[in-house]
Amino acid sequence: MLENLKNEVLKANLLLAEYGLVILTWGNVSGIDREKGLVVIKPSGVEYSELKPEDMVVVDLDGNVVEGNLRPSSDTPTHLELYKAFPDIGGVAHAHSTYATAFSQVREKILPLGTTHADCFYGAVPVTRRLTDEEIKDEYEKNTGKVIVEAIRKKGTDPLDCPAALVAMHAPFTWGENPKKAVENALVLEKIAEMNVISSEISENIRTVPQFPMDQTLLEKHFFRKHGKNAYYGQK
Amino acid sequence: MLENLKNEVLKANLLLAEYGLVILTWGNVSGIDREKGLVVIKPSGVEYSELKPEDMVVVDLDGNVVEGNLRPSSDTPTHLELYKAFPDIGGVAHAHSTYATAFSQVREKILPLGTTHADCFYGAVPVTRRLTDEEIKDEYEKNTGKVIVEAIRKKGTDPLDCPAALVAMHAPFTWGENPKKAVENALVLEKIAEMNVISSEISENIRTVPQFPMDQTLLEKHFFRKHGKNAYYGQK
Amino acid sequence: MLENLKNEVLKANLLLAEYGLVILTWGNVSGIDREKGLVVIKPSGVEYSELKPEDMVVVDLDGNVVEGNLRPSSDTPTHLELYKAFPDIGGVAHAHSTYATAFSQVREKILPLGTTHADCFYGAVPVTRRLTDEEIKDEYEKNTGKVIVEAIRKKGTDPLDCPAALVAMHAPFTWGENPKKAVENALVLEKIAEMNVISSEISENIRTVPQFPMDQTLLEKHFFRKHGKNAYYGQK
Amino acid sequence: MLENLKNEVLKANLLLAEYGLVILTWGNVSGIDREKGLVVIKPSGVEYSELKPEDMVVVDLDGNVVEGNLRPSSDTPTHLELYKAFPDIGGVAHAHSTYATAFSQVREKILPLGTTHADCFYGAVPVTRRLTDEEIKDEYEKNTGKVIVEAIRKKGTDPLDCPAALVAMHAPFTWGENPKKAVENALVLEKIAEMNVISSEISENIRTVPQFPMDQTLLEKHFFRKHGKNAYYGQK
Repeated sequence: MLENLKNEVLKANLLLAEYGLVILTWGNVSGIDREKGLVVIKPSGVEYSELKPEDMVVVDLDGNVVEGNLRPSSDTPTHLELYKAFPDIGGVAHAHSTYATAFSQVREKILPLGTTHADCFYGAVPVTRRLTDEEIKDEYEKNTGKVIVEAIRKKGTDPLDCPAALVAMHAPFTWGENPKKAVENALVLEKIAEMNVISSEISENIRTVPQFPMDQTLLEKHFFRKHGKNAYYGQK
Repeated sequence: MLENLKNEVLKANLLLAEYGLVILTWGNVSGIDREKGLVVIKPSGVEYSELKPEDMVVVDLDGNVVEGNLRPSSDTPTHLELYKAFPDIGGVAHAHSTYATAFSQVREKILPLGTTHADCFYGAVPVTRRLTDEEIKDEYEKNTGKVIVEAIRKKGTDPLDCPAALVAMHAPFTWGENPKKAVENALVLEKIAEMNVISSEISENIRTVPQFPMDQTLLEKHFFRKHGKNAYYGQK
Repeated sequence: MLENLKNEVLKANLLLAEYGLVILTWGNVSGIDREKGLVVIKPSGVEYSELKPEDMVVVDLDGNVVEGNLRPSSDTPTHLELYKAFPDIGGVAHAHSTYATAFSQVREKILPLGTTHADCFYGAVPVTRRLTDEEIKDEYEKNTGKVIVEAIRKKGTDPLDCPAALVAMHAPFTWGENPKKAVENALVLEKIAEMNVISSEISENIRTVPQFPMDQTLLEKHFFRKHGKNAYYGQK
Repeated sequence: MLENLKNEVLKANLLLAEYGLVILTWGNVSGIDREKGLVVIKPSGVEYSELKPEDMVVVDLDGNVVEGNLRPSSDTPTHLELYKAFPDIGGVAHAHSTYATAFSQVREKILPLGTTHADCFYGAVPVTRRLTDEEIKDEYEKNTGKVIVEAIRKKGTDPLDCPAALVAMHAPFTWGENPKKAVENALVLEKIAEMNVISSEISENIRTVPQFPMDQTLLEKHFFRKHGKNAYYGQK
């Protein structure tokens, strides 16, 4: 059943590894068939290089395994909460990508600093509140989904206009119209997270530290040994 | 028409992805046939792996599509402004490369700190002024080109002696004698942007923070277990 | 003898290079056959691309070469100390991976800042004390093993619940149930070390520096040129 | 003539690109035949992917081209100064690798912070003094060699015990027993430069900034969902 969706979900999981957003068996991507109310998700703890379409697990929205010989991702209840709360999304991705995870670790939202951000996210990417000890001990993965939904509702935008949230002290979850878009949004999120860290370094260091602009003589020597009529770099 | 230029522009676009200066469908490169007054540019929103020479779009300098079944890049009007203002350039590239984009985001010019910079750029790479709300709302992409031209004219050098500008809160545009050179300049720009960030970290942290130079005994142990007559690392 | 273990150890050594945790001939991985009391380890100073199963060296727990034409890794005595002190481990890995080595260099433990850490390490990854001059001069590699054991015992957890330690001014050693797991733990260690450095940058720079959030007009322009009914990015 | 050395020099040049120490046509490696007093060096401005053994240029120690149809690297006079001053070296490499170049740009020596450094360099890697305007204007490349020699002599170690120097506001030069070793030293130099920058970040940020250690409950949840008898991650 759902062979096309299984293929789509498998390919999206492989993209997660190919884009460098996960290592080892980390991360997971799922996709939903809204008509049937069934979700296809990566099995737990299997290496990316060994994943086959038939390994994908089919679960219903209550988390019951409908088809598949393997356990679904341990994060399945988080995915299900998102599908239930956001009726227009078709795929969910979870990565431990380096920069976005670092923002999660210090519980700092990702501010829009430029058009790279604005091309994909309408406003800041929010960070969830911390889970309480009770929420961690009981139904942890489901509660992780709930605080994501809470963060997006608090922000007030359509979930597809801000298809990502950072789980406090954990890592990002992203989503999209389909599994592939969910992974692409994870990639963009990682890129803007990295750009914002670098932006902050420039703004912190370069604006406040005396720089060492090079000698004008040296600048001219190097520029004109490669450019203009007296250049001597390269072949005649 | 313009089959050679289409091939050249396609290859330059693929280089943009190969050099890691763009992800997904980001970025675009164009080339101009000055005699015919026609520009060849990447189509909008098509994946790099799927681009074929015949997908390249031919537009005139007013932006009218002269040949091609696909929409040209949404940044086409920016490219056209540059071709009109800088009569010696033959190619334009736009990337969202990480470090150069970070400089754009904090609106900080890239100072020449060393010969890597001077080999390619004569003096600081300028950042444009912010666009006004009116310039953003109406003819945004054309106005983006205009502020780039403004920044280069203000700097006062030949556009080929500083073949790059950072658009405030956006990302870099670069240019060159031909499409390939425009992409190479984007690569050099990214590299010097990265080097400048790291230079600022060294200058900020290493000059002010007490370092922890290693014990002399340990230094000698490791050096001489690999070097000299008592070395015991490696095979006899 | 021990052909299976030799293959396993060879593959684990190649993973070390493939994961980018070492360059040149750096690093080494070993595995133990607990019943026979024999350890299989990489030969010293041989390039990864040239390693063959029969190059792996077999030593006993006193460091005597039992089989093999090449010298064992110069770090062999460190591995042996770990096998003797930690009876449940089956593999040991040593890398000079960039971020974990930097933590070693400044003698700073790696604090748990998020679930990426907690998935693999129960609490902070400790750093050893500095070796005394005497410990460096005499039986250096054996003493390196001893301070690692000391650091883990001081921490008080089961060695498999914290399968890593940072050697002061040197680099990490990791271990696991088998050679492959030892290398995987080295990879996770490197990733959490990197995430913690970036977390500290965010926490230092972004929380204290005035940021430059982009103009709302520009944000809306870029978001809506790609999304919604008036989008003009991409193909119709 | 010197076919073996040409092959060796070509391979070493390709390694420079393969190790990521240069982009485009940057960098150059040479090797010397001490008996004949001839140096083989990369031609100027040719792309790495197009280099063939017969493109390598043979020059004597005065810089006269003895064989070859192409211009030698514009940095040839720098290489020759090093061969003349350091009689035991057999190869020289010049790269614009990111981190080592950043140290050059801020004119900061690379301190030994750990054994990764000590395995290759005996003590700090020095930075040259700035060239005077006269030294830049006349015989620039030869004078670059002279200040490198000056820096190594001032340091007082055997040139093979510190096979690298950073040219102020330029980039590193490295050397070794042969061309391949010169490139390997360039790779190690880049790695220790990177490790030192990261070490300084840890020492600056992590020691002074309040960290956000994760909740103990969350730590235990994640560790024990993957480890121990109640683990539910992965397959049974």
